[in-house]
Amino acid sequence: MAVLEFFYDFVSPYSYLASERVEELARRTGALLRLRPFLLGGVLKATGNQAPVETPAKYRHLKVDLERWSRRLGVPLNFPAAHPFSTVLAMRCALAAAAKGLVVPFTHAAFRAAWAEGLDLTRPEVLALVASRAGADGPALVASAPAYKETLLAETEGAVKRGAFGAPTFFVGEEMFVGNDRLDFVEEALRHASGA
Amino acid sequence: MAVLEFFYDFVSPYSYLASERVEELARRTGALLRLRPFLLGGVLKATGNQAPVETPAKYRHLKVDLERWSRRLGVPLNFPAAHPFSTVLAMRCALAAAAKGLVVPFTHAAFRAAWAEGLDLTRPEVLALVASRAGADGPALVASAPAYKETLLAETEGAVKRGAFGAPTFFVGEEMFVGNDRLDFVEEALRHASGA
Repeated sequence: MAVLEFFYDFVSPYSYLASERVEELARRTGALLRLRPFLLGGVLKATGNQAPVETPAKYRHLKVDLERWSRRLGVPLNFPAAHPFSTVLAMRCALAAAAKGLVVPFTHAAFRAAWAEGLDLTRPEVLALVASRAGADGPALVASAPAYKETLLAETEGAVKRGAFGAPTFFVGEEMFVGNDRLDFVEEALRHASGA
Repeated sequence: MAVLEFFYDFVSPYSYLASERVEELARRTGALLRLRPFLLGGVLKATGNQAPVETPAKYRHLKVDLERWSRRLGVPLNFPAAHPFSTVLAMRCALAAAAKGLVVPFTHAAFRAAWAEGLDLTRPEVLALVASRAGADGPALVASAPAYKETLLAETEGAVKRGAFGAPTFFVGEEMFVGNDRLDFVEEALRHASGA
């Protein structure tokens, strides 16, 4: 069975869009989906890549482009008033959720909180709410998050070693794909991998 | 009639891919296509945007991504041994060709020379060959190119004022679209503009 790895960070709106599409894509292609939370800030720092916010003209256009994608996909998207925001705690929480088998519902709840509802993912009480919605004991999950500091660093470094320089990043084996706008290439690779 | 403006620089492989698709797109949508040569280096400098080559991991992946697009579109693409390369003279030649009504054949000939044939667009004799293939007096066109220095600067500055930060950049009215991978959005905008 082909495996689709999806590396993402909650600060990344294109990761949010992709998060709303990857499960259906995996279903269509018979692939096994692996959600891989990582820290985009760490990836950018390690590779020397710029965040969109560092180029004002690009950042302005990003919001226009996101509105187009939101309409096309029918995915609600409200650009947060405070962005970019730190996701260190949020991504550690995602790993804590993964350890409890809850990474899928936690990931959806966190992306939707940040990108549809305008909630502030830097706040522990918001992350506790998100974790509760995902079926966890919210405050306990957030309290356990600091234990995932090293795992988050290792996950991020591992992705960089495999070639990642941004988010979302997908792997089919060691074939890498970057961006919500490359999911059609991902689908082709999965069909090829499964011999379909 | 809706107008599609296409800003490009010969150094940009995604501009090359787009150049092989925009005429058919304009035909399909009944739009008037306007080719707008500009200087990507000037755009990057004015906006603070990075060239892909400044992030080695991104640049490595760009080549992989381009191969995928080349296969999908059936457009031959051989990444030049020397890249990025200066296009100051080449873009001035494109404007000289435009002044003679030859911007369309010159643009195709230049992109194909650089991205399919491995010719060096920094060399005046190569640009003369390209101009000859486009139906011009090649050496005369290249000799006239310095006169387009100010026009090229003005075209580049004009695009930046309208929001451009990279290439290829498309405008339908003042709606901006960035990237070969956004031509489907461009097509929607053209159909909407023409009431189709």
